[in-house]
Order: sequence, then structure tokens, then C-alpha cells
Amino acid sequence: MQIAIVLYDRFTALDAVGPYETLGRLPGARTVFVAEEAGPVRSDTGSLALTADRALADVPSPDIVVVPGGPGPLPLAPDGPLLSWLRTADATSTWTTSVCTGSLLLAAAGLLRDRRATSHWLALEELARHGAEPTGERVVTDGKYVTAAGVSAGIDMGLTLLGRIAGDDHARIVQLATEYDPQPPYDAGSPEKAPAHLVDLLRTHAGLILT
Amino acid sequence: MQIAIVLYDRFTALDAVGPYETLGRLPGARTVFVAEEAGPVRSDTGSLALTADRALADVPSPDIVVVPGGPGPLPLAPDGPLLSWLRTADATSTWTTSVCTGSLLLAAAGLLRDRRATSHWLALEELARHGAEPTGERVVTDGKYVTAAGVSAGIDMGLTLLGRIAGDDHARIVQLATEYDPQPPYDAGSPEKAPAHLVDLLRTHAGLILT
Repeated sequence: MQIAIVLYDRFTALDAVGPYETLGRLPGARTVFVAEEAGPVRSDTGSLALTADRALADVPSPDIVVVPGGPGPLPLAPDGPLLSWLRTADATSTWTTSVCTGSLLLAAAGLLRDRRATSHWLALEELARHGAEPTGERVVTDGKYVTAAGVSAGIDMGLTLLGRIAGDDHARIVQLATEYDPQPPYDAGSPEKAPAHLVDLLRTHAGLILT
Repeated sequence: MQIAIVLYDRFTALDAVGPYETLGRLPGARTVFVAEEAGPVRSDTGSLALTADRALADVPSPDIVVVPGGPGPLPLAPDGPLLSWLRTADATSTWTTSVCTGSLLLAAAGLLRDRRATSHWLALEELARHGAEPTGERVVTDGKYVTAAGVSAGIDMGLTLLGRIAGDDHARIVQLATEYDPQPPYDAGSPEKAPAHLVDLLRTHAGLILT
């Protein structure tokens, strides 16, 4: 089984690495990082590059597709290389998945029409504009499409799908191996839980605050 | 302020990317990935490479040092380039931190003698053999040394230290931006919580199961 994790300029690194570290531990699977061209691809902060070992064109039919998000601008050109590849790869994939605003890319490719899906909480309205039915859930499965909420939700998505494919005990082993027993020092991980003034601040000034 | 995240052959990617995505959002900080030589460095699975933008020798005095772990063999040579660099960098650092078995590297460099520290649950005894005082806590601060438990604990460590340096509200904003509201599909993230037969399995066959 082949897992293709898609990289593009200014992706968010944890979006990609969360599923890599969990779902990627699927027995017998080979994970390959892909991008329009093979080589290093810079993440949103500019201070980290992950290597795409293969070009999109060289990985035409992965079993599982994983699309991370990013703070934008996303490569949303309808006939651009990424969305074209997503449509082709999705035609034969067993699972097509995303983390964060990666779901906007799936939706812009026309793959989430009328499907329940999720995204980063700041992007749910845009997901609706692309024809999906956004939910506020952390991991959403609709048919073969599995979408996760923002950034860190890719870990939960990866474990969820891993359990679905390889069985609960294998997913538990990977959870134990990655010591995923989260103990956040604050309780501010969703707009429902964070102080309202911080939610407003992020809604209006995300770019300024985080980069 | 400069944050140096250390890479070496067969490191665990999430160990590095968790702190990068949280602590790295420290206002005004520049994060740099470093390794013995600049260039791509392969993680433990072999299917992912992160780019070290600078060589260790070119980053002699970062303010914050972050050392990820890996399933081994770790570069523990006492006079090897990594441990020598760690001792030098630590002499002027404000914070010296680790994730997972990264604490074994700090300890082998002689930096955790008689200090409270943590590591991956499978490595706590080895941490003691290196002269540290292991605890089962997820994030341990002793003076300027901040160590985290296995793999995913680097996210909690990153947020904890971010709050300490930049204030609670900034850490909450980063938690909200990364939507770190964990909802693991299983409750098996520590040896106390996971089924005993899975703990035993991982204790005896970690290498076989996970790679």
C-alpha cells in the first residue's frame, strides 16, 4: 500500500508530519512525500523544508492521499498541477484525506461536493463556498474522504484511519509508541474553549501574529 | 532570539516538528534546523527528510536548543560532533530542551547530571544510567532544562515553554491557531493507560512493529 503525502510551497509542517508519524506506521505501507517537482519544499514559516522524494507525475495512483493545509495562498488553480493530480489520484485511491485547509484543496478539486467535511476553524466558511458541508468535528469521515480540523488534528485523523485499516490494537500501539497522551498546558485549542478576545484577535490578525 | 533544532540520522520527525510548530511561533524568534552538515537529514522511517539549513559549527550559540529523539542508534559518542556541540551551545543557551530520547543525548553530554528529566517511557531507565533523575511526567523543567516525554509530548513542551517566555495568552493563541484540542480516538497513550499486552509487545518488539 502506498501513502502519498502532498507538499507545496508554504504548507504547514505539522499538518503533514502528524499523519506521517501515525498513519505512516501502517504495516506494509510505504509513505512517499510528493510535490509538483521533487526536492525540498518550504513550509509556511520559511524556516523548515521537507523533501519531496518524488514528483506528482511519478506517483499517479497512491492508495492513500494525504493533503496538508497552509495559511495560504493555497495552490487553488482549478487546472493547476496539484488539483489536476488530486483528481487523477482520487479516481483510484482507497482513501483521500486532508488536514486543516488541505480540505479546501480537495474541495477546489471538486472532490467534496455535498460531502460532510471539516477544516481549520477559520476556514469552515470557505469550505462551504467550495460546495462541501462543513462540520465542526475534529475528524470527519464521509465515504472514502477523511478530513481533519486544524494542524494538530492530523494526529487524531492519522490514528483514526490507522485503526480503521489495521485494527484498533495496532492504532493503540502507535499511540503508545508516540506517547500520544496529550496534556496541553492550556485549554484554548478551539474557538469554543479559547478566551473570546483571543479568538477575535486570531480571526482578524492571524497573519500578523503567527509569522 | 535564535532557536536551533538539531537533526541527525534517524531522528523522529514529530519530535522536531512539534516544538517547531509551537515554540517556533515565539515572537521575534528565528528557528534554524541544524545538523553536523547542512543538507537533508533522513528520519527514522527513511521516508522523510528534513533540511538542516545550517551546520552545527555555523550556529554556535543559539538561545534555545531543541534536541529530538529517535529509536536509535543515537549519536552518543562522548566526543562526537553532536555531543561536543551540545556542551558548547549549552554553555550560553537560555534554554536547553529535548523531546523523547533527545534527553539521552543531553544526558550523555553531561548536561542532566542529578537533574530531574523525562524521556520516552521506554528509555527512562537508560536516562537514569546517564545520571539524570527520571520522572514519569510529560514535561519536566529543572532550571533551564526542559525535557519532554515521547514524540508527541514535544507539542506540550513547546507550548509550555512558549507560555513561560512569551506569556500565557500568546501560547493560547498558538494553541488555538494549531487547533490543539486533542481528541485521540483511543486512550492508550501511556503505559499506564494502554492494555498491558500492548505495553509488553512494544517493550519487547518495538523495532519490529513500528518500522
